[in-house]
Order: sequence, then C-alpha cells, then structure tokens
Amino acid sequence: MGMDEIIRLALERGFFFPSAEIYPKTPAGLWDYGHLGVLLKQKYIQAWIREVVRRDEMILVDGSQILPRDVFVASGHLESFADPVSTCLKCRAIHRVDRLVEEVAGIKVPERTPPEQITALIREHNVRCPSCGGELGEVSLFNMMFRLSVGASGDEAYLRPETCQNLFIDFPRIYKISRRKLPVGFAQVGKSFRNEISPRQSLTRLREFYQAEVEVFFNPAKANELEKFESFRSYPLRLYFDDRMHVITCGEAVESGIVSSRLAAYYLALIQSFYLKLGIPEEKLRIRRLLEDEKAFYAVEAWDLEVLTSIGWMELVACNNRGDYDLSGHARVSRADMQVFEDGEKFTPHVFELSMGVDRSILALLDLGYRVENGRTVLKLHPALAPYSAAVFPLVDKPELVSKARELYESLKLDMDVFYDESGSIGRRYRRQDEIGTPFCITIDHQTLEDNTATIRDRDSMQQVRLPIPEIPNYLSKKTKL
Amino acid sequence: MGMDEIIRLALERGFFFPSAEIYPKTPAGLWDYGHLGVLLKQKYIQAWIREVVRRDEMILVDGSQILPRDVFVASGHLESFADPVSTCLKCRAIHRVDRLVEEVAGIKVPERTPPEQITALIREHNVRCPSCGGELGEVSLFNMMFRLSVGASGDEAYLRPETCQNLFIDFPRIYKISRRKLPVGFAQVGKSFRNEISPRQSLTRLREFYQAEVEVFFNPAKANELEKFESFRSYPLRLYFDDRMHVITCGEAVESGIVSSRLAAYYLALIQSFYLKLGIPEEKLRIRRLLEDEKAFYAVEAWDLEVLTSIGWMELVACNNRGDYDLSGHARVSRADMQVFEDGEKFTPHVFELSMGVDRSILALLDLGYRVENGRTVLKLHPALAPYSAAVFPLVDKPELVSKARELYESLKLDMDVFYDESGSIGRRYRRQDEIGTPFCITIDHQTLEDNTATIRDRDSMQQVRLPIPEIPNYLSKKTKL
Repeated sequence: MGMDEIIRLALERGFFFPSAEIYPKTPAGLWDYGHLGVLLKQKYIQAWIREVVRRDEMILVDGSQILPRDVFVASGHLESFADPVSTCLKCRAIHRVDRLVEEVAGIKVPERTPPEQITALIREHNVRCPSCGGELGEVSLFNMMFRLSVGASGDEAYLRPETCQNLFIDFPRIYKISRRKLPVGFAQVGKSFRNEISPRQSLTRLREFYQAEVEVFFNPAKANELEKFESFRSYPLRLYFDDRMHVITCGEAVESGIVSSRLAAYYLALIQSFYLKLGIPEEKLRIRRLLEDEKAFYAVEAWDLEVLTSIGWMELVACNNRGDYDLSGHARVSRADMQVFEDGEKFTPHVFELSMGVDRSILALLDLGYRVENGRTVLKLHPALAPYSAAVFPLVDKPELVSKARELYESLKLDMDVFYDESGSIGRRYRRQDEIGTPFCITIDHQTLEDNTATIRDRDSMQQVRLPIPEIPNYLSKKTKL
Repeated sequence: MGMDEIIRLALERGFFFPSAEIYPKTPAGLWDYGHLGVLLKQKYIQAWIREVVRRDEMILVDGSQILPRDVFVASGHLESFADPVSTCLKCRAIHRVDRLVEEVAGIKVPERTPPEQITALIREHNVRCPSCGGELGEVSLFNMMFRLSVGASGDEAYLRPETCQNLFIDFPRIYKISRRKLPVGFAQVGKSFRNEISPRQSLTRLREFYQAEVEVFFNPAKANELEKFESFRSYPLRLYFDDRMHVITCGEAVESGIVSSRLAAYYLALIQSFYLKLGIPEEKLRIRRLLEDEKAFYAVEAWDLEVLTSIGWMELVACNNRGDYDLSGHARVSRADMQVFEDGEKFTPHVFELSMGVDRSILALLDLGYRVENGRTVLKLHPALAPYSAAVFPLVDKPELVSKARELYESLKLDMDVFYDESGSIGRRYRRQDEIGTPFCITIDHQTLEDNTATIRDRDSMQQVRLPIPEIPNYLSKKTKL
C-alpha cells in the first residue's frame, strides 16, 4: 500500500485527521488523533517507557511548553532556528526557498547558508514562484518559534521548539535530587511546536508534534568507561555512511572510531533494538551518519535512525552528541552553576541525545504494517501496539450467546483495550478487526454454553485455538507483551 | 501537614518545581513535574482511563493545542473569556481586580460584572494598589487566551484555554466513525493554557495545566432514558446546596428535581466514585451546586466536585450541562452540520461535561496523603497511584545479598516502576520510601539465600510477610490494582 492509501484508511478509521477541519481557514500542519490513534500512541509511548526509559533507568521529566525568552537566547534558537523565505513579487505568496532551490535547480542548500547566497542561487538558476511563476524577492530568515506574550505586562516567551530544553535547564535540580552518578539519562515525552512555512502532508512535518526525547548527561573524560556497554558489545549496529550500509558490532564501531565512544554506541544500540523489537524489519532500518552540512548547529556527532517507508527513508530519531553546548550556553546566560562534582573533579557534563519523533514513528509503523493479502486488508502491528488487544463477538445474535459475550467483554474491558461487536457476519467482523490491527478475536459460540470455552482467532495466522474462558485474560496479557 | 510543607516536600523530592527556575525572569504559573511527579501523574491518568473512560466506554481524542481564531469566535472565548484588570496609576503594576475587591471590601464580584461597575466598587470602597497603595485606574478586560501568529502570513490562532473545544469541533467526524448511538462520551487528557494575571501558588492556578475532560453528547429529549442509570440508582451522591450537605441517592436526586436528569446524576455518581476509589475520604468530598453568578457563561446546570484540603475546599472537577451551546455555536460560525439523525429525528446533541483539573487533583491527593505519624513521614497514596510500586533492598551490603537483590530488581523493573536502594540502614531506606509513598519494600536477607523467599513490608501497617520470590510479581500486581 502507498502512503496515500494509509492516510485514507487512517482518516476513515479515525487514527488521525486534520484539526478543526470544520473551519476551512485552519492552518495546515495541525492534526488530531482519534480513538484508535490515541490507543496506538499510548501503547507506543508505553513501549518506549518500558524498553528505553525503564530498561536504562532514566529519570522522567514533564516540563512546561511555554518557556521564557532567555532559554532560547542560551539555546541559540532565537538567533539560529530560522528558515530562509522569499515573497513572490507578483502574487505575494511566501515560500521556503532552500527546499525550493533544491527541487528546481537540483542543488543542495546546506543548513545555515546565508540568505544573500540563496538569493544569488535563485537569480542564477531562475527559480520562480511555484504558485504563479512570478519573480521571487530577496531571501530573509523566518524564525520558526511561536512567540507568546505572558501576563498583563506582556513578558516575551516562546513555545518550545524541542522538548529537550526543559531537560537542560532542569538539570541542576534533578541531578541533585536523583543522588545518581553520571552517566544518567533524562527522558521526556510531550509536544513541541514549530511554525513551519510549508507543513507537509500528514504527520511527517507538523507545526505541533510529539517528541520522546532522551538526554544522557555524561563525563566526556569517561565516555568509554561504561560497564553496561558489555551487554551490547557484540550487538550488530546497522550503520550507513560513505554511501553504503555497514553492519558492524558496537565493539568494532568504537574501536574503528566510526562511533565516537562506547557511550554513543550503547545508546545507538538501545534505540535500534527498540525499533526492531516493535517489529520493524532489519533491512528497513538504518542509522545514517549525517554529513557536515546536514548537522544541526549544536551537534558534534550526528546520526539519524531512519526507516524505509513507502515514501522513502524517513528520519525517526536524531541521535546527536551535543557536547557541552547546552549546559554551557544556559550557564552563560543564566549564570547558574551547571557543573557537577564527581570523583574529585568539577566539570560540565556533555550530552548525547536520542530525539524521537512520535507521530512519524506511528506513521511509519502504520505504513509498514498495512498490507493487502489475498484480498484481506490487515494492519500487522506488534500485538503490544495494537489499539485493541482483543475483540469479543457472539457467533450469532442469540440472546444466550450475546449475554455470555458481553459478560466476557465486561470482565476484560477495565484492564485492557477491548472491543465488542455483534453486528454483521462473523467473517465481516474479523475483517473489520484485521483492518485496525486487533491481534485476537474471541468468539462465543454454542460450545461455550456447554463447556465455558471460546475460540481465539489470530490476526496473522488466521488460526483458531479454543481455551477455557478463565484462562483468556492471562493468555491475552502474555501475548500482548512486548 | 499544611500545604506549605507539602510543597516543600514536593520540591525536595522532585514531584514538581517551578519551570526554568535558573532564569529569574521566568513568568509565574509554569511548573515542571520531576520523576516522582511524572510517575504519579501517569498513574493518575491511567486510573481515570480505567475507571471513567473504559468503564463508560468513552471515545478518546487527542487534539491540537493550537486552534484557529474562528473556534473561539464560536465558543465565545474571544469575547467573554476575560478577567477585569486595572493598572496602578502610581507604580504601573497591573492587578486582577474582581478578587482584589472581594478580598479588600468583602464583596462578591460575580462573573461577567461589567468593568464600569467594578471601577465604581473600587472607588466606593477605596480599594488601592496592593503593591504600593497607589490609586487604581479604570477597569478594563484582559483576554486570558494566548494569541499566536501561524505561518509566514501570520494567521491568527490561540492556545486552547480548555481541552473540550477539540471534542466539539471533531464531533461530526468522530460520531460518524464510531457507529455509536447517543449518549456517548468523548474524552481527552492534555494541556490547556490561560494567561492568568495573577497565577497562584503551586498547582492551584497555572498558566499551563493538564485537564482530563469528558464531554457526553446526548439527546435532550432522552436524558432520562438511560439503562445504565440503574447501576447507580441507589448510589449516595454527596451533594452540597442551600448551604449544607445532602447525602441522597441518585434516584432521589433525580425524582426531587435537584439534579436535572438521570444522565446528569449518572455522571456525577461516576466521577464521585472515581475519587472515592482513589482513597479520598467520603467526608472530604462534596459536589457543590454553583450559584447563578458563579456559573460559566455556557452552563445550564453546574456542579463542582470539591475536596477538602489543608487550604480549604478545592475545586477538582467542573460538572456542567452545557446544553447545545457548543455544537450550535460551532454550527453557526463554521456552517458545518453538527446535528445527528437518530430514531427518525434530527437534532443538535446537548453536552454534559466532567472537566477535571489533573494538577490540582494530584496536589489534593498529596495534601490528603501526606502525614506525620509517630515521627514517621508517610505519603498514603492508593498503591495504584504510588510513583513506585515497590522498592528492593539487600538487608546489608554483602555481595551475595546485593546480587540477589539486583537480580530481583532487574526481573521487575520493565513491567512496573520499582526502585533499588542499598545505601544506609534498612530503617532509613524504609523511611525514604514511606516519604514518597512506596507501598511495598522487598528485602533480601540471609534466609533468601537458603529458601528463595523475601520479606515484603507494607507501608501503612508496617507489617512484613515472607513470600517465595517467584510469587512476588503476582502479589505486587494484585496489590497495586485499583
């Protein structure tokens, strides 16, 4: 299935849809999750908490989305978080021009290219307004943060453009409370906001989006002293650089200097293993080393975890060694002490981050999971991620079967997400559940009334097993575990 | 314990603390949750999903926080969601004056009192600037929504001041997808934003806060036809009106006309039973009928679920019959069809809402749960809400005990929130867990090495039981269930 088909299905079944769609003037790039989307997102985040946060014993934070101006002076966003734009001199439409030049002239425009240089490229390659063909004006920079005015006195503040800033500015308090030694990961899931000039289709480039971010604070002098690295030493990383794939172990990656430290390799392995566990096929996952001109302005070392979808490789996690850029910046502007004292040494921790796009990850899972097999549309999500863990049906709508099915449904519904359906033929009910990824369909039939058993039909194999009803909760909870 | 003490403890243990506190100019009313706060909040929301959303088979939505101007034209917020303010003519400080007049002159200033009338009250009662004693200027209205400019063309948008607007504007699509008949509840948990003039201490009046909202769409002609009402018919509601408590059953409340319909009584009972299940003592909970001049501008019938904390009765849930105010308003401005066709009739659904403040609920639970007993500080949260479900200790730091304890900890940590501690005396480790509400402390001792059992100490009774280690996961999962 192509991405268009996925999005059509997502709309129809209510996974997600455009925000405030009854108002035609609603800006693009804002999407809402419907019931199935919320369930899938909850389970995705729960999987991340289990496999990344709990596994690595990280510290959770949930910080303010509104942050004062000074935070973004220190972070560099006020100065550098901007896209080059140009207004059409004829129709007055405003366009983001770095991508436009790339598309029209086939020339790569690196991050942070000065606006005058982009203007020159536009003139040289005769790039015109994509709306009306008119001439484009001088290129200027458009800051992508949303500005707010707080309180009656109008204090300048911004919606955070990345969740990680809370983790940096809260570092001194949380480090102190934690009584932990470095390295230690801080983790947060929440919304970030970017005032994109040209939001893209669906969940790939949003103005308001979920990030699940990890910032690991470490002593740069000890980035190679990491006991837990041993658990991943022989783990095969799927690295992409020099225009090709290299499947090499964490140990080799560090020894050859391809990955900067054991700490970096450990966290690359942790995030790769998370996606593989969710069912992304190995050959559709790579961790690509960014080229110098692709790196964000704070990155010392940068890898993107990418997944191959029907619209090409999609970046899901930015893995950056941010050095001491963030803590030093905040120390300079706030004058707070961001250093730690450990093992007789005072120093500013460095940061390795795993910055995950949640909406994109969900879109990628839908894209990889949806398929048409022998005329049947089926969403092959890992059972731990499926919106509904199970559906309960009476075989036919006889009162004894209906009441028995409802009783089972009621006994399950508080502890898991489960769906009840009695309408239409059993085949049609199976197909409806296949399409939304429900891994197990439990059917109450005539035999149930005799021996208190029910059939459980597996979404993928379409095979049925028959189990005593009292064993079903346990069966489902084991089968839907990650 | 008083609220000040609670807040001191919350800061020290990292439940919550002021946002961006390293920047002294950060606006008030913005708070971050630390690790324990995030865990408590996650569990609180999970309890709400279990006991309210799943129990009542509601439909989940997670909508955009940024919404276009038209939404708030229709909702009335652009015109009516404003506080009266006045600038001191001497020191230029800006104050919210309805509360100021109430505090200084002891006069109630109802919602929607025209600014001129408040100016008159200020003059009459000689209300002065609380900062400098100077004279206050004319009263004007200050809209409490945060305004944003979206895209290069600067489209006007706002941060939602209440989560429910998504549920109203998404109603047509979600109703259609759901294939459900009314009444049906839509539920959403997420952040809302209010540009308060004077944010109050801690989590009681925030500029950015979590709401968990339910909007039940119903046919007003059938508000008394509700089969599931029977389950609550003899349930005692704790209603407060005419200046006193009335404990009456749902049945009586409807028959006497005190509550407008079976549907309203059912949802009041549902939300009351939720808080009682979390362990709020009955006598500290009431559902207070709002006076005419206290009601929000859209409310037909309005009740506040309140809990008695150390700083008095605190509103946790606004329970409003909003009539067809919202759907009709959005139909008028958007020209979309917000009606439904059921049982041969076309009509605009009415809405009954349960609008819950999540941060306040958490603050109330901490306030009611914290106590000092015989010199021991203990946080008596329901085990299902406690940040950590259990802690694991080796009795002393001998290698055999440490390795056995770590092994148990590792086997539990992915599936629940559990804490490992080997530092300090066992008594001190118990006390640290008491203070953060951990219901169970598991200790590995010498006997463990002989018979593979461990002791489990109960936070509240301080009694210990000894169990075989393989039985511990099941024991904890049963004991920490709601």
